[in-house]
Amino acid sequence: MAIPVETFFLRPGGQGTLQARIQQMVAEGILSGRFRRGERLPSTRGLARHLGVSRITVTLAYTELVASDYLASRGRSGYFVSENAPEPPEFSPTPRDERVNWDQAIGRRFSSSETIIARPPDWADYRYPFIYGQADPQLFDHANWRLCAMQALGARDFHALAQDHYDRDDPELVDFIARQTLPRRGIVARPEEILVTMGAQNALWLTAQVLLTRQRRAAIEDPCYPALRALLNQTRCRLAPMPVDASGLPPERVPERTDVIFTTPSHQCPTSATMPLDRREALLARARALDALIVEDDYEFEMAYLKPPVPALKSLDADGRVIYVGSFSKSLFPGLRLGYLVGSEPFIREARALRASMLRHPPGHIQRTAAYFLSLGHYDSLVRRIGRALTARRSEMEHAIARHGLDLAGLGAHGGSSVWMRAPSGTDTARLGEALRAQSVLIEPGAPFFVGADRSAAYYRLGYSSIPSERIDAGIARIAEALAPAPDGG
Amino acid sequence: MAIPVETFFLRPGGQGTLQARIQQMVAEGILSGRFRRGERLPSTRGLARHLGVSRITVTLAYTELVASDYLASRGRSGYFVSENAPEPPEFSPTPRDERVNWDQAIGRRFSSSETIIARPPDWADYRYPFIYGQADPQLFDHANWRLCAMQALGARDFHALAQDHYDRDDPELVDFIARQTLPRRGIVARPEEILVTMGAQNALWLTAQVLLTRQRRAAIEDPCYPALRALLNQTRCRLAPMPVDASGLPPERVPERTDVIFTTPSHQCPTSATMPLDRREALLARARALDALIVEDDYEFEMAYLKPPVPALKSLDADGRVIYVGSFSKSLFPGLRLGYLVGSEPFIREARALRASMLRHPPGHIQRTAAYFLSLGHYDSLVRRIGRALTARRSEMEHAIARHGLDLAGLGAHGGSSVWMRAPSGTDTARLGEALRAQSVLIEPGAPFFVGADRSAAYYRLGYSSIPSERIDAGIARIAEALAPAPDGG
Repeated sequence: MAIPVETFFLRPGGQGTLQARIQQMVAEGILSGRFRRGERLPSTRGLARHLGVSRITVTLAYTELVASDYLASRGRSGYFVSENAPEPPEFSPTPRDERVNWDQAIGRRFSSSETIIARPPDWADYRYPFIYGQADPQLFDHANWRLCAMQALGARDFHALAQDHYDRDDPELVDFIARQTLPRRGIVARPEEILVTMGAQNALWLTAQVLLTRQRRAAIEDPCYPALRALLNQTRCRLAPMPVDASGLPPERVPERTDVIFTTPSHQCPTSATMPLDRREALLARARALDALIVEDDYEFEMAYLKPPVPALKSLDADGRVIYVGSFSKSLFPGLRLGYLVGSEPFIREARALRASMLRHPPGHIQRTAAYFLSLGHYDSLVRRIGRALTARRSEMEHAIARHGLDLAGLGAHGGSSVWMRAPSGTDTARLGEALRAQSVLIEPGAPFFVGADRSAAYYRLGYSSIPSERIDAGIARIAEALAPAPDGG
Repeated sequence: MAIPVETFFLRPGGQGTLQARIQQMVAEGILSGRFRRGERLPSTRGLARHLGVSRITVTLAYTELVASDYLASRGRSGYFVSENAPEPPEFSPTPRDERVNWDQAIGRRFSSSETIIARPPDWADYRYPFIYGQADPQLFDHANWRLCAMQALGARDFHALAQDHYDRDDPELVDFIARQTLPRRGIVARPEEILVTMGAQNALWLTAQVLLTRQRRAAIEDPCYPALRALLNQTRCRLAPMPVDASGLPPERVPERTDVIFTTPSHQCPTSATMPLDRREALLARARALDALIVEDDYEFEMAYLKPPVPALKSLDADGRVIYVGSFSKSLFPGLRLGYLVGSEPFIREARALRASMLRHPPGHIQRTAAYFLSLGHYDSLVRRIGRALTARRSEMEHAIARHGLDLAGLGAHGGSSVWMRAPSGTDTARLGEALRAQSVLIEPGAPFFVGADRSAAYYRLGYSSIPSERIDAGIARIAEALAPAPDGG
């Protein structure tokens, strides 16, 4: 590869002759790891013109660098970084003399409050990855996705998709969501009531920013998705945790003076509980009585492979108080970063303006590729294929859990991709998780999901969206073994 | 296309017999525009199973719908929406009975504060689009971009890119930015000092959120990029406008007690002024004296096609107080939504945590496609090709402006893609812009760029990144004509 001439700069106020400064610049590039062995340097003529120096100065500098074996000359082909050039220890340029007091300069901190349940980046190398929310490459329809991407990258679409669309979305994707995706949940919405987002995370974040302030109260399920708690904390609103039961959120637990209720009725996160229809209606009535809004996070509704899902809260919402969050992360793949918000027009207008200010819009090609994939029916077949695979895995999970005597604490009524587990009281599942890692088993300790730490340590979640069916039994066996009391009673 | 069975729901508590409710559901789907002429309905067996009703009920309902010409039966192929089915007036489902007082429910408003300079969506249909910041499809290397996208969509990369990476970026893109992009600006940075963002807009937004609070003061150039003002207003910080001159921001204009200085030294936005080296050094000295940070928005540094650019402020920054914002929107295309932040590690850590909370990370495939395009050298040839085209256009602009007697107010020293113009005093360029639209000419009125409205109305910006060279003269002629005093002196 050729090193572009534009990367060469003579620093103003440098010391020494021009020739020496050029030599130093090249040597520094090599020693800092920016220029690598075998890469071609600009021609002497080109570099001289770029730097505004005479060509002979550059030639002399290069000749010196050849003599010191930083460079090698290959006749008419020009100058290259020598194969014997010194290797940098690693890519670490000289540190600056930092003079900023960052503790003071940073106005708001986000790093401490964020609790991401981060799986190890190399999770796919584990033999028993009971993790949640990653894509299974065996199930995804990669070939058709690639064809749809090619179509969206074709000359006809390219020009339109390459432009800045300010606050607008791809009308084809919005149309598909309105006509095909939402009706599956019984939801009817106009395009003005839909906003495409960078995944469900982004949808929740926008919602929180628009609805909440220091003076408002948000009620959240306990346990809940930890990243939701973190993003609500960013608004500095008052947070009221509501303990859930085996049917999800009990409506009577929603406290007085609540402004916004965050709930996951399809599969409560993380317990997997499914809220029955009568409770959904009671929750809507409770919200109406409080004049509160409901944010319904329906993050994996497509995973209803055992029986048809209960209608979404939003589909039962007669007075416009439900804001619905959908995601393509579970049915397509999470690295796509594509989801959507559905709500009344005044709300969507504000969320759209905020999105425009923070990032404009999700990339055009991504939106169009998804629109093609969905409208060509690949999405439907994919959801069915995932459903078949998860049916088998879920049955294997249930059998293995029973066979090895583990304690199941929660299970989605219509499907889902994880189960909620209870370890013997006194177990610290964070430590359990660490111990299991050494045996190539990944589990998700329960503590980060809870607001209070007291009753949480014994729970854990097992995802089965990324583990092949035939490994489930052996993986569960290892968990049971790790949980068994030591034989000598110690 | 087949209508998926999952989109059918019997609403709880519906009126009438099951058969009537099924008929109504289908008719509603057709009348609301969700089901379109020619689309196939689910089989009677499939729909009966999905709804949990007997098959004969569905058959009777379908038969009734055939009789009323909503559906057509095609023997063994099944039932289709009839070609004579009533057409919905337009896609507008029955409105809900909105009971939420959104004026009160919305905690923070973003729609009013945002001033996007939105070009008309159909700008490409105008003959003389002197607009700024859109991609020219004639210049972009679409074929190689597509090849790079295919490579990133290949089986080898796909698995890795489909995953949720939490707060991490694609290491290949970060490596390329560190080794190849930043050195062009004389900047040396470690991967921990770089964050990939959803365009420069997102980079500025993250920076404002991390650094500013109600108590802090941000100093901005006047005129400036209006979306910057809007996103700074979201932080509720105190804003100090600093009038710029022909060399950009005068350092002595930075007020006492400033915490963060926002500046565009390469090409001041919108005046195009280039800040000379001695002023850059004076600005750094001023920031050091105030212990202020500098945010350097280098949004189109690649557009230095006339002579090598002045080194970035960040490259002269000895004490870590410059935060650098880069973008691939101008050199690749804006719909890509890809940019980056460079700054000291404590700052990047907070910006990364905030980005993770609001959207996790820019989509993996987009990052990898850009990494391939950049590292295969396509980016370099593209920047050169754009430079050649803009050289010709810029020269044509200068000649046409002189020829038609227009008043040039600002011009980038190294290149750029727009010029800043002054209309005769008393001209309202917003009205001028409207009048020119009717003649297929698009210009950008100056008022939205200014904090104060008084001295702004007579300025306007002319972009030349989207108009072919050969149309420039005729377009400028029309502007001159529209600005000329009426011949009868009226």
